[in-house]
Amino acid sequence: MKYEAVVEVLLKDGVSDPEGVAIMDAVISLGYGSVQRVATGKLFRLHLQAEDENAAADVVSQIAEQLLSNPVLEDFRVRDLLASASA
Amino acid sequence: MKYEAVVEVLLKDGVSDPEGVAIMDAVISLGYGSVQRVATGKLFRLHLQAEDENAAADVVSQIAEQLLSNPVLEDFRVRDLLASASA
Repeated sequence: MKYEAVVEVLLKDGVSDPEGVAIMDAVISLGYGSVQRVATGKLFRLHLQAEDENAAADVVSQIAEQLLSNPVLEDFRVRDLLASASA
Repeated sequence: MKYEAVVEVLLKDGVSDPEGVAIMDAVISLGYGSVQRVATGKLFRLHLQAEDENAAADVVSQIAEQLLSNPVLEDFRVRDLLASASA
């Protein structure tokens, strides 16, 4: 089966996010005073072959842990793991 | 009301994604031969005040268009727009 998954990588709470702060400053200077906080992260969309959904989730989690995130600074989350016709 | 929203920014189809290619190479060299493609993107989590969900969605879309994405190269999508107690 072909699967598609999205991995979100976000900084852990308390880790400084200078890009988020810079965007927040720009948001305010554009006049959007209603915005209170901006946090930045990374997104990865993977297409893969796997026996079933559990096997696909395992592979995606391993790749996210080993390669896509820095476990000291970042948390990751796998979402939208879907069987895919087009992948 | 307080709202929280996630903006996903992904490269348009056909735009080269050297980071995705590099990750794909690393995925293969780690032995995950079942992976066929990796695409990279950016993620932004915004906390904001708004009258209602439509107003919040408007502000988030405007910020995504003006500040968070490059319309020549990237597409954005607003998701998980939720009323938030903690924001």
